[in-house]
Amino acid sequence: MSLNNFQQSKQRRNFLEKELKVKFPQIAKAHIEEEENIYCENLIGETTTPLGVAGPIKIQSLQGSLKQKKDLIRQSFIPLATTEGALVASVNRGCKAINLSGVAKVFVKKTGTTRGPVYDTENLEKGLWFIDWLKKNEQEIKKEAEKTSSHLRYLKFYAKVVGGYTFIRFYFDCDEAMGMNMATIATEAINRWIEKKAKIRCLSITGNFCVDKKASWLNFLLGRGQELWAEVSLKKEIINRVLKTSGEKMFEVWLGKNLIGSILSGSISYNGHFANIVAAYFLATGQDLAHVIEGSLGITTTKLLPNGDLYFAIYLPAVMLAMVGGGTKLKIKKEAIAITQAKNSRELAEVLGAAVLAGEISLLASLAEGSLARAHQKLGR
Amino acid sequence: MSLNNFQQSKQRRNFLEKELKVKFPQIAKAHIEEEENIYCENLIGETTTPLGVAGPIKIQSLQGSLKQKKDLIRQSFIPLATTEGALVASVNRGCKAINLSGVAKVFVKKTGTTRGPVYDTENLEKGLWFIDWLKKNEQEIKKEAEKTSSHLRYLKFYAKVVGGYTFIRFYFDCDEAMGMNMATIATEAINRWIEKKAKIRCLSITGNFCVDKKASWLNFLLGRGQELWAEVSLKKEIINRVLKTSGEKMFEVWLGKNLIGSILSGSISYNGHFANIVAAYFLATGQDLAHVIEGSLGITTTKLLPNGDLYFAIYLPAVMLAMVGGGTKLKIKKEAIAITQAKNSRELAEVLGAAVLAGEISLLASLAEGSLARAHQKLGR
Amino acid sequence: MSLNNFQQSKQRRNFLEKELKVKFPQIAKAHIEEEENIYCENLIGETTTPLGVAGPIKIQSLQGSLKQKKDLIRQSFIPLATTEGALVASVNRGCKAINLSGVAKVFVKKTGTTRGPVYDTENLEKGLWFIDWLKKNEQEIKKEAEKTSSHLRYLKFYAKVVGGYTFIRFYFDCDEAMGMNMATIATEAINRWIEKKAKIRCLSITGNFCVDKKASWLNFLLGRGQELWAEVSLKKEIINRVLKTSGEKMFEVWLGKNLIGSILSGSISYNGHFANIVAAYFLATGQDLAHVIEGSLGITTTKLLPNGDLYFAIYLPAVMLAMVGGGTKLKIKKEAIAITQAKNSRELAEVLGAAVLAGEISLLASLAEGSLARAHQKLGR
Amino acid sequence: MSLNNFQQSKQRRNFLEKELKVKFPQIAKAHIEEEENIYCENLIGETTTPLGVAGPIKIQSLQGSLKQKKDLIRQSFIPLATTEGALVASVNRGCKAINLSGVAKVFVKKTGTTRGPVYDTENLEKGLWFIDWLKKNEQEIKKEAEKTSSHLRYLKFYAKVVGGYTFIRFYFDCDEAMGMNMATIATEAINRWIEKKAKIRCLSITGNFCVDKKASWLNFLLGRGQELWAEVSLKKEIINRVLKTSGEKMFEVWLGKNLIGSILSGSISYNGHFANIVAAYFLATGQDLAHVIEGSLGITTTKLLPNGDLYFAIYLPAVMLAMVGGGTKLKIKKEAIAITQAKNSRELAEVLGAAVLAGEISLLASLAEGSLARAHQKLGR
Repeated sequence: MSLNNFQQSKQRRNFLEKELKVKFPQIAKAHIEEEENIYCENLIGETTTPLGVAGPIKIQSLQGSLKQKKDLIRQSFIPLATTEGALVASVNRGCKAINLSGVAKVFVKKTGTTRGPVYDTENLEKGLWFIDWLKKNEQEIKKEAEKTSSHLRYLKFYAKVVGGYTFIRFYFDCDEAMGMNMATIATEAINRWIEKKAKIRCLSITGNFCVDKKASWLNFLLGRGQELWAEVSLKKEIINRVLKTSGEKMFEVWLGKNLIGSILSGSISYNGHFANIVAAYFLATGQDLAHVIEGSLGITTTKLLPNGDLYFAIYLPAVMLAMVGGGTKLKIKKEAIAITQAKNSRELAEVLGAAVLAGEISLLASLAEGSLARAHQKLGR
Repeated sequence: MSLNNFQQSKQRRNFLEKELKVKFPQIAKAHIEEEENIYCENLIGETTTPLGVAGPIKIQSLQGSLKQKKDLIRQSFIPLATTEGALVASVNRGCKAINLSGVAKVFVKKTGTTRGPVYDTENLEKGLWFIDWLKKNEQEIKKEAEKTSSHLRYLKFYAKVVGGYTFIRFYFDCDEAMGMNMATIATEAINRWIEKKAKIRCLSITGNFCVDKKASWLNFLLGRGQELWAEVSLKKEIINRVLKTSGEKMFEVWLGKNLIGSILSGSISYNGHFANIVAAYFLATGQDLAHVIEGSLGITTTKLLPNGDLYFAIYLPAVMLAMVGGGTKLKIKKEAIAITQAKNSRELAEVLGAAVLAGEISLLASLAEGSLARAHQKLGR
Repeated sequence: MSLNNFQQSKQRRNFLEKELKVKFPQIAKAHIEEEENIYCENLIGETTTPLGVAGPIKIQSLQGSLKQKKDLIRQSFIPLATTEGALVASVNRGCKAINLSGVAKVFVKKTGTTRGPVYDTENLEKGLWFIDWLKKNEQEIKKEAEKTSSHLRYLKFYAKVVGGYTFIRFYFDCDEAMGMNMATIATEAINRWIEKKAKIRCLSITGNFCVDKKASWLNFLLGRGQELWAEVSLKKEIINRVLKTSGEKMFEVWLGKNLIGSILSGSISYNGHFANIVAAYFLATGQDLAHVIEGSLGITTTKLLPNGDLYFAIYLPAVMLAMVGGGTKLKIKKEAIAITQAKNSRELAEVLGAAVLAGEISLLASLAEGSLARAHQKLGR
Repeated sequence: MSLNNFQQSKQRRNFLEKELKVKFPQIAKAHIEEEENIYCENLIGETTTPLGVAGPIKIQSLQGSLKQKKDLIRQSFIPLATTEGALVASVNRGCKAINLSGVAKVFVKKTGTTRGPVYDTENLEKGLWFIDWLKKNEQEIKKEAEKTSSHLRYLKFYAKVVGGYTFIRFYFDCDEAMGMNMATIATEAINRWIEKKAKIRCLSITGNFCVDKKASWLNFLLGRGQELWAEVSLKKEIINRVLKTSGEKMFEVWLGKNLIGSILSGSISYNGHFANIVAAYFLATGQDLAHVIEGSLGITTTKLLPNGDLYFAIYLPAVMLAMVGGGTKLKIKKEAIAITQAKNSRELAEVLGAAVLAGEISLLASLAEGSLARAHQKLGR
């Protein structure tokens, strides 16, 4: 934030205080550093949200194990910014149950940042020709896209023609960034080249085929950003002692609520409360909060094992998350990222995976035990 | 936050700083007042997010006009907490286009806070009997529910039996609160009564039939919390001058992107970027951020009028939003609420409706004009 | 079919045979009676499909039992027209497993035939006013609708306003008919009255809000035509002996395939093969085949019981099925209806419910046992 | 049908007539030839459905034009078996409007017959390893699959791991057959090889990941069987003269009904009545009627052209249709196929594409003109 920005924000506050006849003592206590770059116009200060920490949780990345079968187990704390009472405590309890049962095994697949423009291809023949042309010219497109940033790598495209419209979903690897702006700029470069060489007009640089910040099956089925899996086998004894319930009851609640209940509500998410953990983690670590929408899509699966343990797993198909750029540039967000000890976006996603696993276990246990309302009465309001 | 809480949070920070060998100078600058009630366990401080303001925007509530046809037009500022460059500027531009064209007409319908438990009804006969029994005993249920809070009013239920499961979605009017905790507590009281009188066991107090914090057709079709509509007729001349495009182009982008693109991506949201505005407004005003998910469901519709103006409307079926309780208790959130001048939850929702309308208009205009990437390059990253 | 029709159809065949240089000996063997009313223009004859019969299956209607707890158990044969080898045999095997385990308990709820027009209401105010007006004038609407047929009873409406559009879904009880034409005619009468009294123009008498012959959540959640449930508790010993598998294996396949597999494919149907049985039954009994689409929506649920038995249930939310009108007027269809011994549409639906239950049981058992491919190799192609 | 089969079917009829005290004169008039192979167990005869013919319609395949730009235009008649009054007449009117405006341009893409088993992979590591293993061994899998039939060609797979489940969707080119049985047999061979080499157990040979006979986004987004497109530019004058309406009105109805109405009903199909034409064509030509479900998924798009013409296009992502095997083996179905003059499955699909285009145009015109109810009153019931 430039000094100018700071001064302007003060002037705006003063104007509003006078105009609206209210006072902003809290908002005024901005402790954002003056020299920070703030991506928010008409700034009047800041808002704050309580920040708690859950964990540590033991995490084993399946990335390494796939290759060398000897990954190290690390322990991570989980920063969560929230005003929902019981949330941090709940994740914490899940961490305990996981740690005592073994470790949260986590896998991350970088599917890529996507931008999905729509083109005016007038008729089927031209649309089908266009897709053909794109295939033949994919190396050129890759080159045009990658000229726009040394951090961006073009990956592939998925296409659909209907009538006079052609939708193309481009996938990019945006390195450590979440990459929507990079992807937009690269797609604009691609479009200029397409317009020049194929004489095809882009109708809109986003044709809701990205699909950015909306719940959609396209994201669920094909993935977006990072796909995220986590699992643990909860020991029977730990379920009883720490979670105060049984694997059978948790399985029963999972089946009735996460699967059948979600089905009967025409839902696109088959989990207990991924969204709570994703939102709190995103806010703490400086992610784009509207990405909570696709970021909390996903499904929980469980299986009762013959020895009475409960296998518990989650899958999140579309996590848009970054170490650099956007809100992560703010010092206070960097501090929260430091809490996770993540060295890159993949590790930052891994900690989220473990956190969501912990939160989901704890909620299903609460529901199985019947203590949800009591917890909220005590810790929340 | 109790003094105790404050001290503990300092101890936790110190522990983490030592443990992780990092420093938290920003997080430590907590300016949350000591006496505030913080609903976040394991507190280590706070996180901050830049707060900007858009508007003012002219709003006419259709509530009054339906009854008396002479509602007053008010002007509201819009607090938005975000790290996404160009967002506040975009909403602001939309406000300008609306104000110059007329007024944002807004309508809010309070559909109710819902909790949807699942019951173990063993077989069809018992499940069908149970629904019948609920209908006959609805007045008793209402009484039991309303005993739990003077702010809660029982409204109705919607039910579905499949096999040995019965799902009931209870609707409550929770006054000025978002009400999920109230609804949970009321539902628990209902369940105790059901268990006692009908001998039916609740399998889980939430059966994902609420549907809380998940995108679902049940919420889209039946509504949840407050349903929200807004509209404006954009003047042809204003579209040209302020939005730098034409109604025809905006219509073309809307049709290709918001409708056909969303359809082809199997989406459950048919809009440009409701989520951005809902998330920024929710964070500023202390709402539960995971409610951004159902809160940003919805559809934009437009119509080219014979005189060249563009009719523009939005619909959000499931906005969970409050004036009291949860995060809205924090002083800094109350200050942001004060910016809107809203006197109650309905008015707070109305300002959101106008803000989403403005943001949506501005985005579609940018896309139509082809300036999205340029705006992000300049204002964002 | 009038004599004229018969003659014309012969002329058309002759023309085509000459024109295309092919012969139609089979199509020409029309045995539709000359005096029958055929609702098919440009008739050239008929097509035929093999007709098999499964059962008998023991059926207990839960209709009566809800009221008087002493319904009689009846036995029904199931007519199925199909060219899919193994289908009739599969349903037959399911019937055997059900009969030996007890009885198929079936429940039918007549939700109503729906027609969902879209109105041009120009803006929100008018749309919201219109819904209000409809509520106030519902008795008049009912009267107008019911004037069109002594067999039609107006039930209720469900409405949605977005922008300048208002969608209304009218529900009618069409007696023993499937009723789409009755409902269309009644809706047209309603529209004339609306246009006259409320000055609201109907944009299209169907706004895809019916929802006719399309898979949709609106039909799944709110029901259409007749909602249909069936259940049975399969005895452990019968599962082993008749179905050659175990309840545990069937449960495992059901969970993996019908629930998780359907979820991961973004499906709107959570069953094994409802469609096969619905299509074969509809074709045999003269229903509209395009209604197979909403008619085969639905979910199968199962539960392992402590004694090793498997509770098995199905739910079909939108079965459009009739005893009179349309294809059921053909003598050959009436003969198939006679096979079921159904006295009315409810009983005709009950037999379908039992048949779908039987078919679903048999398929899941085959899959659990691993014999699907073998059965198709032997009986099919 | 073996002589034996014929005799048995007579015995069954006699038994039923005695048992149920009804007579089956129509069903008994089976004219299926004695030597025909009938894939229907417990045969008692046949059912019949009136068969009409629409067209001819002018068709241009875009297949050729993509390669050589000089495809010939052919004329096809369309066999439709239905009991819905007005359907054949409606398609016929659409044909006329298309022929007078130009030609139905049609494109078919063979995406492949799919079978989607679910495997028990116990945990994430094994599931992720399995997919990796499949990629490495794809050539072996292809070989195993192709051993089962000289008509089958293995194409590719799409996979998803969640928890202990792995779902694989195998794609096969089944030549001129619809191929579900071929695909099942090939998948069984693959599974035997997988079990032997990778020690992975198949939980169910279909994991609803096929997705067979269910409406699903997976089929819509990735396609199944044959993907089908068709288009025409309707001349302004023809719309007025033949369809008795205007392009503006048709566009208005399409937008309100097919798009916005389908969206608001949570539909997975965005068309007027694809299902009617698909069902009637499938019944006439011997296809599996349960395939009407995915076969009628799809979207209609239209565009008003500057000269007042209306561009009109359809897309059906998942048409399962064949020239050989299953019901197409019946002589009477072969006769109907001969009506289309199709030389292979692609051409058979092309005629369906043109027919659906014609039917869709005619319905939207009727709705725009307001004549739907009148047509049904006159031609239907």
